[in-house]
Amino acid sequence: MGENKDLFVLTYGALVAQLCKDYEKDEDVNKYLDKMGYGIGTRLVEDFLARSCVRRCHSYSEIIDIIAQVAFKMYLGITPSVVCHNSSRNEFSLILDKNPLAEFVEELPAGRSALCYCNLLCGVIRGALEMVHLATDVTFLQDRLKGDRVTEIGITFLKKLDEKKYKRKK
Amino acid sequence: MGENKDLFVLTYGALVAQLCKDYEKDEDVNKYLDKMGYGIGTRLVEDFLARSCVRRCHSYSEIIDIIAQVAFKMYLGITPSVVCHNSSRNEFSLILDKNPLAEFVEELPAGRSALCYCNLLCGVIRGALEMVHLATDVTFLQDRLKGDRVTEIGITFLKKLDEKKYKRKK
Repeated sequence: MGENKDLFVLTYGALVAQLCKDYEKDEDVNKYLDKMGYGIGTRLVEDFLARSCVRRCHSYSEIIDIIAQVAFKMYLGITPSVVCHNSSRNEFSLILDKNPLAEFVEELPAGRSALCYCNLLCGVIRGALEMVHLATDVTFLQDRLKGDRVTEIGITFLKKLDEKKYKRKK
Repeated sequence: MGENKDLFVLTYGALVAQLCKDYEKDEDVNKYLDKMGYGIGTRLVEDFLARSCVRRCHSYSEIIDIIAQVAFKMYLGITPSVVCHNSSRNEFSLILDKNPLAEFVEELPAGRSALCYCNLLCGVIRGALEMVHLATDVTFLQDRLKGDRVTEIGITFLKKLDEKKYKRKK
């Protein structure tokens, strides 16, 4: 992450705090962060594609690798590891040993045990992928802020890619 | 500004949009952004001092130069020019030819003509200086988003430094 990360991380904290003021239920804050992130993702993707010079991907695995190795590195300065969950290869997880966006947060605010503090990220990923015509479901499966050992973001591609078609082309 | 600036800038935009939803009056949004920024500044200053290795300053001019040349460069990737307004040398302006935090904003939202979109920055500066025992007044004097040619942040140090004392020490 760039030199200015702390200003960003603290500003993000102020945004979450504001939403916690606005919405009583954690799930509403989560939804709202996701929605905001979606809007950000749809705008960010163009910049990302222009700057990263990534080529057309031929499988979901390739896409996930680019998210983990290029996008996370570019915007958050970390490279999550990737896990694939099923044989149809449309369900993946990004595993974050540490989460820079929650760097200054030691624990969830009191009475906010169901808050997905970094849910904006899920929205950003979903919004960005939507813009390249990929429908996904993106949620936190584990969160260090909730006592889990790692932070895990689950990404499910909703349409099964016909991988055979792509394999033939190679 | 680091590679991740767009994510930060877009997230900041989401924060301002949220506050505009929450507060009807522009001045309330401005106040709130300033207050949030103050909190961020008080936390950011420690990190800034640790990373920038700046030495003790002996005049307000030196302090302003460090804000413009080191802090703005570090967190926003730009170097504003500095203007001093009075002979007692406690009133300064930072002149920004462009404002990265408003990069994606073409104009103020409809009906929000008194919004100081980047008012968080004023709070950050005020909060950070407060932590090194300098009381200031920080406000936008001009804003390109309001049709001004440049963006100008005015910083007034509220206590007059006895500059003679410092000069003698040199």
